[in-house]
Amino acid sequence: MTIIWIIIGFGALSVVASVVFAWIVNRIPATGDAPEEQAAKLMEISGAIAEGAMAFLSREYKYMLVFMVIFGGIVWWAVDWESGFSFLVGSVISILAGFIGMKAATMGNVRTTSAARNSLGKAFRIAFNTGAVMGFGLVGLAVLGLIGMYLLLSAIMGEASQWHIMEALAGFGLGGSSIALFARVGGGIFTKAADVGADLVGKLEENIPEDDPRNPAVIADNVGDNVGDIAGMGADLFGSIAESTCAALVIGAVAFATNTGALLYPIMITAIGIPIALGFTFLARANTAGMIENTLKYILMGSTAAMGVALYYLTLEMLPASFQIGGATYTNLGVFYCVATGLGAGMAIGVATEYFTSHRYSPVREVARASETGAATNVIYGLSLGYMSSLAPVIFIAITVFVGYTFAGMYGIAVASLGMLGTIAIGLTIDAFGPVADNAGGIAQMAGLGASVRERTDALDAAGNTTAAIGKGFAIGSAALTSLALFSAFLVRSEVESLNMLEPAVITMLMVGAMLPFIFTAMTLKAVGKAAMEMIKEVRRQFDTIPGLRPSFQLTEQSLAALGAAGDSLKGMLGQVFPTEPELLAAVREAGGANPPTDEAVAQSANLGIVPGKPDYRTCVDISTKASLREMMLPGAQVILTPIVVGYLFGPKALAAMLIGSLVAGVVLAISSANAGGAWDNAKKYIEAGALGGKGSDTHAAAVVGDTVGDPFKDTSGPSLNILIKLQAIISLVFAPFFANNLNLLG
Amino acid sequence: MTIIWIIIGFGALSVVASVVFAWIVNRIPATGDAPEEQAAKLMEISGAIAEGAMAFLSREYKYMLVFMVIFGGIVWWAVDWESGFSFLVGSVISILAGFIGMKAATMGNVRTTSAARNSLGKAFRIAFNTGAVMGFGLVGLAVLGLIGMYLLLSAIMGEASQWHIMEALAGFGLGGSSIALFARVGGGIFTKAADVGADLVGKLEENIPEDDPRNPAVIADNVGDNVGDIAGMGADLFGSIAESTCAALVIGAVAFATNTGALLYPIMITAIGIPIALGFTFLARANTAGMIENTLKYILMGSTAAMGVALYYLTLEMLPASFQIGGATYTNLGVFYCVATGLGAGMAIGVATEYFTSHRYSPVREVARASETGAATNVIYGLSLGYMSSLAPVIFIAITVFVGYTFAGMYGIAVASLGMLGTIAIGLTIDAFGPVADNAGGIAQMAGLGASVRERTDALDAAGNTTAAIGKGFAIGSAALTSLALFSAFLVRSEVESLNMLEPAVITMLMVGAMLPFIFTAMTLKAVGKAAMEMIKEVRRQFDTIPGLRPSFQLTEQSLAALGAAGDSLKGMLGQVFPTEPELLAAVREAGGANPPTDEAVAQSANLGIVPGKPDYRTCVDISTKASLREMMLPGAQVILTPIVVGYLFGPKALAAMLIGSLVAGVVLAISSANAGGAWDNAKKYIEAGALGGKGSDTHAAAVVGDTVGDPFKDTSGPSLNILIKLQAIISLVFAPFFANNLNLLG
Repeated sequence: MTIIWIIIGFGALSVVASVVFAWIVNRIPATGDAPEEQAAKLMEISGAIAEGAMAFLSREYKYMLVFMVIFGGIVWWAVDWESGFSFLVGSVISILAGFIGMKAATMGNVRTTSAARNSLGKAFRIAFNTGAVMGFGLVGLAVLGLIGMYLLLSAIMGEASQWHIMEALAGFGLGGSSIALFARVGGGIFTKAADVGADLVGKLEENIPEDDPRNPAVIADNVGDNVGDIAGMGADLFGSIAESTCAALVIGAVAFATNTGALLYPIMITAIGIPIALGFTFLARANTAGMIENTLKYILMGSTAAMGVALYYLTLEMLPASFQIGGATYTNLGVFYCVATGLGAGMAIGVATEYFTSHRYSPVREVARASETGAATNVIYGLSLGYMSSLAPVIFIAITVFVGYTFAGMYGIAVASLGMLGTIAIGLTIDAFGPVADNAGGIAQMAGLGASVRERTDALDAAGNTTAAIGKGFAIGSAALTSLALFSAFLVRSEVESLNMLEPAVITMLMVGAMLPFIFTAMTLKAVGKAAMEMIKEVRRQFDTIPGLRPSFQLTEQSLAALGAAGDSLKGMLGQVFPTEPELLAAVREAGGANPPTDEAVAQSANLGIVPGKPDYRTCVDISTKASLREMMLPGAQVILTPIVVGYLFGPKALAAMLIGSLVAGVVLAISSANAGGAWDNAKKYIEAGALGGKGSDTHAAAVVGDTVGDPFKDTSGPSLNILIKLQAIISLVFAPFFANNLNLLG
Repeated sequence: MTIIWIIIGFGALSVVASVVFAWIVNRIPATGDAPEEQAAKLMEISGAIAEGAMAFLSREYKYMLVFMVIFGGIVWWAVDWESGFSFLVGSVISILAGFIGMKAATMGNVRTTSAARNSLGKAFRIAFNTGAVMGFGLVGLAVLGLIGMYLLLSAIMGEASQWHIMEALAGFGLGGSSIALFARVGGGIFTKAADVGADLVGKLEENIPEDDPRNPAVIADNVGDNVGDIAGMGADLFGSIAESTCAALVIGAVAFATNTGALLYPIMITAIGIPIALGFTFLARANTAGMIENTLKYILMGSTAAMGVALYYLTLEMLPASFQIGGATYTNLGVFYCVATGLGAGMAIGVATEYFTSHRYSPVREVARASETGAATNVIYGLSLGYMSSLAPVIFIAITVFVGYTFAGMYGIAVASLGMLGTIAIGLTIDAFGPVADNAGGIAQMAGLGASVRERTDALDAAGNTTAAIGKGFAIGSAALTSLALFSAFLVRSEVESLNMLEPAVITMLMVGAMLPFIFTAMTLKAVGKAAMEMIKEVRRQFDTIPGLRPSFQLTEQSLAALGAAGDSLKGMLGQVFPTEPELLAAVREAGGANPPTDEAVAQSANLGIVPGKPDYRTCVDISTKASLREMMLPGAQVILTPIVVGYLFGPKALAAMLIGSLVAGVVLAISSANAGGAWDNAKKYIEAGALGGKGSDTHAAAVVGDTVGDPFKDTSGPSLNILIKLQAIISLVFAPFFANNLNLLG
């Protein structure tokens, strides 16, 4: 029983830490010492973002509720009521985890902006603490949820075997991942429709800076960061922990039926990471731009190393020196090799990811240089980079799988997956740090704070981008291992002992399975495309019809005529400085591309009587909300229905083959998508930082096209593929009893 | 022995038919009844194309010769001298087949142009006959080569078993496909570097029409059609026939050791297609634009139906009513089901491909509409379309695999693949028709023939595009089946009897295998990107430095000043028609986009003393040649070395898993790449035909970006993936004995 109390203790510690971080962030006044007018502006903007995020989430939750009730009922009917109940609990906790993260983020973003007015160090600390609210809250809920459900199910199902209890517990993982599906897909569509719409019209057509308050889609864009990158990612990683743990518990249940300590070892892996992560948060201090990224990286590397040491002692202590699973004998030292390989592979994948997505290295710079010959070569190079970047991560994952299988069979894969997620509390903190910094920058820009404030938030954002890339590598790697672990648990539960590729049904479904991630990607990409096109039309409409919205620098015969006398005087004034029209237009273009507009420019347009128009943000938020909820249905249905239908029609072997097909193709596609998107983004940022002609050049315009293409890849389809491969596998695991009476149509 | 003579007879018939088609095309005077000046122009241009193609091929052949000698030596050393010898013969015939096609094409293109001066019907017939030279020549050589090598090896290896003879014959397939690798990859890089370079600078930057003689890359672009689409595709499909046949022969050798008729049934499948295809060529008549595509389709469908009937009688006649392979008993009727399913699936894949790549259907129109919101949405929609389009073909392939396996085990898959290739003589004829028509249009444009001539060649080209899409579907489908057949033969030869995905080495290498097509795609895409960037820089340089090359309509202050008095008078003249500068510029832009320039415009610029500059075509051909030969090395090495290294280090099981991983991921990626590229191309053509603003609009510019991104996908990486999956498999098959002493590093 000691072990149960330790797990509960660490889980509670994590939740308490989360609350404390939230308290630390919240006690700071939202607008700091900003002067009254600025403070009002800050509150208005951050209020609009928070309101938009809540509006989206509350609508999304309604959809989820309907889904939970229906699907929970199906699980109950097709499997048993314990699994259905576990599913509901998992769903609720997953929603809660995402919600906490989103709440914290909409509280922390404006405080980070306000702090950035005076001090980079303070701003960094606030953004970090905001991320920690989600990081620790989520891991705490996961650990408490898992141990709580285990105790509850043990009490209820007292007579049943440990194995049966663990199988019912798999419903918990299913709940977590189902919510993650909708959060990732829905949130991903929301955020990228807004982002693509804002960028294409604002940056390319109207030539105004990013996050310019005149852009009607800019609030939706910032809302998107919170619902997609925060709530979506939180649900995703919650799902990974829950599922990996369930897979390990199911596989281990046979071996450790009478040894509760060893049985609960998988939960303990995550639990032991909590105090370690907490210790390292105290090192999060950075006062200069250069220190931020290094600080975040050192924290991540340090906690990885500490975790490795802790796992060594933990594994030898908790597991018997030798034990049997599926007829084979394994050792506790072997299990440590598995979990350590997972831990190390996560770090290695992160490093490889950074190499391919940071503009400090040659791959991204090549993409940037390819923009010199236009958008087409930029896109070709970006796609090529994405595909190429899958090499190292796939090799690392393959090595982990091989080591896992070799030293502890299927159990080894499951614990390797948990090893990769061992530093998750810190990982999530850093992951959430990025969108918070991004939002803070957006708020600074929209509130018209000075260039120095924006500079500080940009420094935070840049560091956040790099660590986000590392985080995405972790998320994909752990998804692959989780999926394989669930696959193994599914085979155990379905009593499939060999999966021979020379059987017709197996090879056939392997092909079909490999196709599924592509179909899913097609649907999510198109969903973003469709939603973005609606957004683009709305943004264009607003620029065309709301007077004064179009940037005052952008002079056209019509706009000048529309301004009447003010237009004439403006024209005359500018005419004195730029004698020829091309010179005038060049100056105008440059001014439009500058970031932020100089105070003089703003004052001038005010003097000339040009009232800046107020865009209708709410309609844009509404478009993203409706489009994302509508468009997530089809890909969501694909992921949930395919395994159930295939399992029922063709039986567990065919389904297992399909899972493996999806896994091997999906992992490569997910890595490629995420990295191509990250590389395009950073190629653009590299140019914006002044390389190859800088902002406003044709090269920059070409890079913006690539960045826009990459948006849905890196933030919608790519991360959603993680969920696809995990969710297909856990659905198979949970529904395994249902497939016992399959139609066996493939013989 | 009768059967051997029948096969030889049909093979000879095919070769004779090819010669006759060549004679029919060649006896027509190259420039028809064109007036002397035009005739000289036509000869000059077509001469430049033919010369460029020869220059590339002769340099490529030098590389291939070196490769053949070295790799042939390796095969001899690692396997046996018979396999090495077969490899050399296969290579030589593959080179010959590609060479014949290219020679015919560079002879037929200008004759098609000349005929199009007077009659669409005649032009169609010439282009068709030109295609038939390659179609029948290649199939004839394949059949004669296979039967000849069989007889030769039987004579030499008299004492050996049929099985051993068939294994040695597999070297023949290896030779065919190795050459195809370099032809497809090298030719694909050549043609797309030129195409991308010509389009990006010519169409987007200089605003001149496609195939405009002022574009320095235009000859290279037309050369590319011949070396990539003709020689490359010929070698590819030659490889497919040779490999599928070898796979079927190896697998069948055990069952039919004493039954030569049944043994040679696989060769007979291809042979019987020859008289059927020949009969249908007589139906190739079309006098109106509308008839062309339908005629081609009816010929293809008709020969498919006739082939189905012929195969029924052939199969029941040649194969015993029941026979045993690998312990299972199969029937000749079952084999017919397999071969018929293959035949039907080929057609079905073709139809599905057409749906996703023709602008008569909604998918391509959606891509076109997405161009209205810019290049980024166009690219997103196109990629989404490509991924989605893999659904139906993968299902058809999966069904074929399932039927094949179920009714005749591994033998069923091999003959299903041959069934899909059953109409190959007609298929190749139609495939080659497309690039010939494309070239004919290019020549018409460059020689300054009237708009009516271009209209006729455009009609031929449009029909060629649709049928090319169908042909690509066939090529990929048959590659998948061929690869699976070779995989099966490899397992037979390596005595692997089960491939259990629950073994560590198997699942690990499955992952690695799935990654390989992505890495290969990354390399080929980047190769095109690199080569295209060199081309773009050269074309820009020529426009900037060769006086008079930049379109005379493109008026800038500088260009007018440079023209001196002529410029003043031109400006004055235009000024009378277009009173304001925007109007003038709009007219100029429209004129630049018009296709072709009106005679008056040409006369006017001549009157004004504007001498059209002469670009340096040769340098561009040279850039494409050098770049493609340099860039094909790395991807080529990947495909050839990976299976050898993996097989040697990890043994046949790991290699088999790798092959399947590459197959399942590669098929989907190949289909996606080909169809996305085709859809982007046709979305652009749809807009050019006047939809959504037509030529010169922003929507068109966005569509050109998508088309350019698609170019390397559809003509370089996509088709090269066919070779990857086939070649990896046949290398494994041929080198199987070498892997017997592998290092077994994965335990």
